[in-house]
Amino acid sequence: MSSKIALLQANPVVGDIAGNANLIAKLAKQAAKEGASFAVTTELAISGYPPRDLLLQTDFVEECHNVASSLNTEIPVLVGTPVPPTSSRSLPGNGVVRAGDSVREVTRKQLLPTYDVFDEARYFEADERPGIARTIAGLDIGVTICEDAWQHCGATPNDYDSDPIAQIVEWGRQGVVLDATVNLSASPYHANKSETRIAVARSAAASLNHPFLLANQVGGNDDLLFDGRSIIAWPDGTAVVAPAWSQGVMITDLSNPNGCLWLGDGNVTILSPGEELNEDEDDLLNAIITGLSDYCKKSGISKIVLGLSGGIDSALAACIASAAVGPENVTGISMPSRHSSQHSIDDAKATADALGINFSMQPISDLHTATDSALSDVLKGGHPVAGENLQARLRGLIVMAHANANGAMAIATGNKSELGQGYCTLYGDMAGGYAPLGDLYKMEVYSLARQFNQRLGKEAVTESTLTKPPSAELAPDQKDEDSLPPYPVLDEILRLHIEDGLDATQITAKGHEAVTVKEVLTRLAKNEHKRWQMPPAPRVSKRAFGQGWRQPLAAKHDWRQ
Amino acid sequence: MSSKIALLQANPVVGDIAGNANLIAKLAKQAAKEGASFAVTTELAISGYPPRDLLLQTDFVEECHNVASSLNTEIPVLVGTPVPPTSSRSLPGNGVVRAGDSVREVTRKQLLPTYDVFDEARYFEADERPGIARTIAGLDIGVTICEDAWQHCGATPNDYDSDPIAQIVEWGRQGVVLDATVNLSASPYHANKSETRIAVARSAAASLNHPFLLANQVGGNDDLLFDGRSIIAWPDGTAVVAPAWSQGVMITDLSNPNGCLWLGDGNVTILSPGEELNEDEDDLLNAIITGLSDYCKKSGISKIVLGLSGGIDSALAACIASAAVGPENVTGISMPSRHSSQHSIDDAKATADALGINFSMQPISDLHTATDSALSDVLKGGHPVAGENLQARLRGLIVMAHANANGAMAIATGNKSELGQGYCTLYGDMAGGYAPLGDLYKMEVYSLARQFNQRLGKEAVTESTLTKPPSAELAPDQKDEDSLPPYPVLDEILRLHIEDGLDATQITAKGHEAVTVKEVLTRLAKNEHKRWQMPPAPRVSKRAFGQGWRQPLAAKHDWRQ
Repeated sequence: MSSKIALLQANPVVGDIAGNANLIAKLAKQAAKEGASFAVTTELAISGYPPRDLLLQTDFVEECHNVASSLNTEIPVLVGTPVPPTSSRSLPGNGVVRAGDSVREVTRKQLLPTYDVFDEARYFEADERPGIARTIAGLDIGVTICEDAWQHCGATPNDYDSDPIAQIVEWGRQGVVLDATVNLSASPYHANKSETRIAVARSAAASLNHPFLLANQVGGNDDLLFDGRSIIAWPDGTAVVAPAWSQGVMITDLSNPNGCLWLGDGNVTILSPGEELNEDEDDLLNAIITGLSDYCKKSGISKIVLGLSGGIDSALAACIASAAVGPENVTGISMPSRHSSQHSIDDAKATADALGINFSMQPISDLHTATDSALSDVLKGGHPVAGENLQARLRGLIVMAHANANGAMAIATGNKSELGQGYCTLYGDMAGGYAPLGDLYKMEVYSLARQFNQRLGKEAVTESTLTKPPSAELAPDQKDEDSLPPYPVLDEILRLHIEDGLDATQITAKGHEAVTVKEVLTRLAKNEHKRWQMPPAPRVSKRAFGQGWRQPLAAKHDWRQ
Repeated sequence: MSSKIALLQANPVVGDIAGNANLIAKLAKQAAKEGASFAVTTELAISGYPPRDLLLQTDFVEECHNVASSLNTEIPVLVGTPVPPTSSRSLPGNGVVRAGDSVREVTRKQLLPTYDVFDEARYFEADERPGIARTIAGLDIGVTICEDAWQHCGATPNDYDSDPIAQIVEWGRQGVVLDATVNLSASPYHANKSETRIAVARSAAASLNHPFLLANQVGGNDDLLFDGRSIIAWPDGTAVVAPAWSQGVMITDLSNPNGCLWLGDGNVTILSPGEELNEDEDDLLNAIITGLSDYCKKSGISKIVLGLSGGIDSALAACIASAAVGPENVTGISMPSRHSSQHSIDDAKATADALGINFSMQPISDLHTATDSALSDVLKGGHPVAGENLQARLRGLIVMAHANANGAMAIATGNKSELGQGYCTLYGDMAGGYAPLGDLYKMEVYSLARQFNQRLGKEAVTESTLTKPPSAELAPDQKDEDSLPPYPVLDEILRLHIEDGLDATQITAKGHEAVTVKEVLTRLAKNEHKRWQMPPAPRVSKRAFGQGWRQPLAAKHDWRQ
């Protein structure tokens, strides 16, 4: 009897039921060929994760369930799929069906995360027990789904009433002996999260006293990223981890860590008990590239266009775009105004040349003068920001004209620090179908730019771009620091508030000036209207702007006063 | 002993704890003066509903709870407020504290709606029993919160495990005799929803065999509208309903429907058993005006600017704006291009004159020619939509220049039919901080325009605007019907799919052409990226685009094929 179980680390397309079914069948075939006795998909692999409001369509749920149940594979497969509700007055389940041999429903998810980017209580009815696939290729297997395993080691933000891992442990005490427990996951990425996910697997294996196997989705869907890194962990803490950002199959060997095999790009990592996984230094860079690349692929977008200002953000955005869709499919447009420096044009050109992307010059001076003069009555005596924004919006208009004319997607180049402070122009630099840097703090943008240069082996982002003081160049001699704290300070204040949930008093106690902290948090609150209209951005931090960020909009007052 | 209970139908500002506390105290004072023995606020009256992610801030929850508990009022008040979690690993409660006499927590909400615009499972821990305020001004009162009362008559989309009304009925059987049950609500508006809400109250009163009193929030917060219409219902089906769209106090008399009194604009409506409430013909118009008016007031916006094309949408949007912030604070800009007809200019001017708003002419022909020529290389041979969108975006740029220069808010004028089909331009006519018509189908726009004229007593929307064929006027002789089905057909297909959840087959079975249905639903799916970037719009239908609408973005393929 073989003890090889295949974890199908797939990159599904949300909503593409037939395509996802083919993908699962293809990966299962590879697994069978390598001698796996059965395979396990990721969570909701048939629909892709997150299916969001598609789950409100009865016919969608039924179609997923039918297709998952009728998968025709050589070896049995535990397939993650939405399953129809048990009554007309209840919700569907987030379930697992067994396909390939005797078709049956195995289990439904018990713990439905409803925080941050998760909305599962909107869509699913919770089950009350984990499942057992008995007997599958001679093994008895406990079956859990993603969050089900996270309560056990306290890795959820709040406690659930039940603990599915503890339930299986209890069954063991009562004589239900299992050979392994599997977990079908769509566990989203954020920087340094893999450490927690591995701890979850080790904790489960230790308590269960048998191997715990977690198959995780990989790739980007909308604003969510999944890093893969499927895991098998043993009770002693030994673990084998699949590569990140790469689709493939991990053939696990229940009795031998060294026997675990990866079918796909990259290699497994074997961790001794207690040993931690080092996320590569350029993991974040891979995350951002995957996000944009998958967004384009899954939306049928093959070309990208963006404004190239000569500044750090657009330079890195161009690097990401060229890595995501190929330099030949990227167009960077330099759009100098009368406030632009020569170095802005030179740096933009140098970036385009180094990347090999298409470069276009479209000075806006004449249009700027024309709009200035057409709007002179409006601008005269009005707030100066109106004139500054004109330039950003003319650029947005030009970039969008390129995009619309050529069937390309414009990308917005703003970062999280700017977006958090409203230091960006609606319909100007915020225009675009995706904001690849939208969840990166400014100092992370610098760091990724240097990494990208290193990877490319040349200065795609020029030294001049990397070292000159950041400027929007919308007014003479304008510098970001005229309006904002220095970025290292700003980033830290934003991070303490957004990621760690600290309030003004607590942040001040960390050594930041009270006035600065108050200004930063007030601007954060006052610019919520911009974030309601920002393009989707790949989520790489513990807390990102976007669908998981639901601040009230109209309440602009600072309630702390 | 008095049997007068006051329902405080307040219009709170989300996040403005101190302001909301003052408002409650003021209304409670009016109630005391009229002889009420105690008062009941709406749900989460101290924070305003929906507080959204403010609830993730511990200090916010504590501040709400402290302020609610220390309200200094002449009569006791049951105050809706977030209450701190019971442990460090759980969520806050959506609760009620008794203030004004002996301070104590009365209850926490049991049924947490997590569908449509509701996200309560994200923020709150559910309680397991309803509360009793005993003895308050000589009465024993059952206390429930909004959704708690909706399971009883099957008015929730899916069943909950428990039914708080049935629990109180069961207590009654066991000898716990109550004089009335109150319900603190923030029950959002949509057209014809009041019928259901009154049925909920009547059903509860009938089962409880004592009066059931529901205090409902009024006004707009972000994209949600609340119509007020607080209710007292008796076991025999008699009900008294407070006015809609108006803040005030309903002094109820438990023993006499005719003794119920409204302090504020408007009058109560007394309904005999079985009698239904007629929503006024112009209820929807009031809803839209309230949404924009409150959005401005609560965000500190006093001025509005919009493009006036001479078409029906911008004409009605101007009417709504003038009613919301006063005509003297509204500026309409006519921005004819070479494709605009003379009647467009004339109709725009006529609307501005009739309303008495500021009117400005800003022809875009010269700028259009200048951008056309600057971008000739890009536009030549490209998709013609690029050139069309240029005009819409130049207009967006001009409107935003006005807004930024004068501290006004631009409003987007699009309707739900257009937005649903992507027949609108990102950063063009979609630019603005709010889209007052964003949840109205096109034919509703026509109907509200005629109603507005009637109310105003003159043709703010001209007969020409009302009768000419809709056109974007972005190309010579362009008509909406060249690209879209006739609006009565389009509206009906969209409504059947969006509101009623019917799929293509079911809609076709209703008598629509299969090809048309498929085209409409495909365009709906393909234009999701625009809706992710649309401004907030007041929710007036059963299902609106916006925060309660969470379609996946990248899945552009039609999975039904």
